[in-house]
Amino acid sequence: MPHAISSPVQIRHHVKASAVIVAGGSGTRMGAGIPKQFLPVAGRPLLFYTLEKFSGIDGEIILVLPDTHITYWNDLCQTHSFDVPHRVVSGGSSRSHSVFSGLKALKPCRVVAIHDAVRPLVSPSLIHQLLQVATEKGNAIPVVPARDSMRQVSRDHSRAVNREEFVLVQTPQCFNYQDIMRLYQATGDLPFSDDASLAEAMGVSINLVPGETQNIKVTFREDLFLAERILIASKP
Amino acid sequence: MPHAISSPVQIRHHVKASAVIVAGGSGTRMGAGIPKQFLPVAGRPLLFYTLEKFSGIDGEIILVLPDTHITYWNDLCQTHSFDVPHRVVSGGSSRSHSVFSGLKALKPCRVVAIHDAVRPLVSPSLIHQLLQVATEKGNAIPVVPARDSMRQVSRDHSRAVNREEFVLVQTPQCFNYQDIMRLYQATGDLPFSDDASLAEAMGVSINLVPGETQNIKVTFREDLFLAERILIASKP
Repeated sequence: MPHAISSPVQIRHHVKASAVIVAGGSGTRMGAGIPKQFLPVAGRPLLFYTLEKFSGIDGEIILVLPDTHITYWNDLCQTHSFDVPHRVVSGGSSRSHSVFSGLKALKPCRVVAIHDAVRPLVSPSLIHQLLQVATEKGNAIPVVPARDSMRQVSRDHSRAVNREEFVLVQTPQCFNYQDIMRLYQATGDLPFSDDASLAEAMGVSINLVPGETQNIKVTFREDLFLAERILIASKP
Repeated sequence: MPHAISSPVQIRHHVKASAVIVAGGSGTRMGAGIPKQFLPVAGRPLLFYTLEKFSGIDGEIILVLPDTHITYWNDLCQTHSFDVPHRVVSGGSSRSHSVFSGLKALKPCRVVAIHDAVRPLVSPSLIHQLLQVATEKGNAIPVVPARDSMRQVSRDHSRAVNREEFVLVQTPQCFNYQDIMRLYQATGDLPFSDDASLAEAMGVSINLVPGETQNIKVTFREDLFLAERILIASKP
């Protein structure tokens, strides 16, 4: 696996980059009435923290939301005087569809970071590093080793597999803007679980960069507590 | 996958159970000079927290340590007046060997929980639930869904796989005492990454119980920070 992971790069300033932040889910797995990206963390919506992590980039931030959530989001921004500049576009029926909507809304740029709305714990330095690698090599995605043993499950059976053969993929997944636009234009909105899978299905080789353990996808209620503890602890 | 996971059980008291806590690693991945199970969390060794989580069980606690760490551990216990009763035994060249050493040191009991020393964040209620299921069904292990996309990696290539086919396996892994002893006696110390894999290789069907996101294996330095934040926040 070390062979497949890029070494840390020298960070240069002024990577010309934009971001597409994708909020899809209805939050039903969390067991709460409101979608998880809006759930409060230390009194502010989770999504505020995610957008703030991207506030240092020099391009645009596009936030893709389900159509039915846009008014609610605008109200939240106003209520909390949220001040990270971004544009909101309406998402689609699948993650791929939503990402494509976000990409189409961007002004042309050099590289674009595509990020899950419910990953508020990513560090700005990881974002920067990924954008740098994508600028040099065409794409970059963050991965972490599977530290737990793993089992492959089917309807009524499960079996052990070798965890050393696997890595877990996070976001932001960063791509040359023209490349990823061409890929989405070619595939339409076929459902892929992430953008690297889509790119790969089209024959593109993917560059892996070491991710961050704490860059979790907030999926279950306990994740929200964890995110809250970390975000409170790292407050400036 | 839901088909393969047991529903929550009614917790009854007085599950006759013991625990084997296995500390193997040299801690080199953490980049620190001392093994990670001894690293300080809020001023006390990580391993104290792990043992404390098992202090409510009604059997023995066996701690398996590398031979060269035993004096250091005894000093730590004395310095900090650590008061969770346990017995220390010397481990072997592999995890399997160490677990077997721990099992052999136990007095016979109904069920045994085999736990990684570097998982201090497991909850006592999960431990209890696993012991209960193992008492009823012969074994039980905690698993959590893979929430990230996954890639299978080889020397110079990686490819996307379907994460919904996989679960991540945590500890404690709980077994009927006589069953697991028989299995270890049959396999000697063949290297398996966990006890469920060993049991399964011997034809035993494994019962999956929903685990806990925060029950991470402290592997990298950032995990230690995370563990510290959670343990401090959950202090009584």
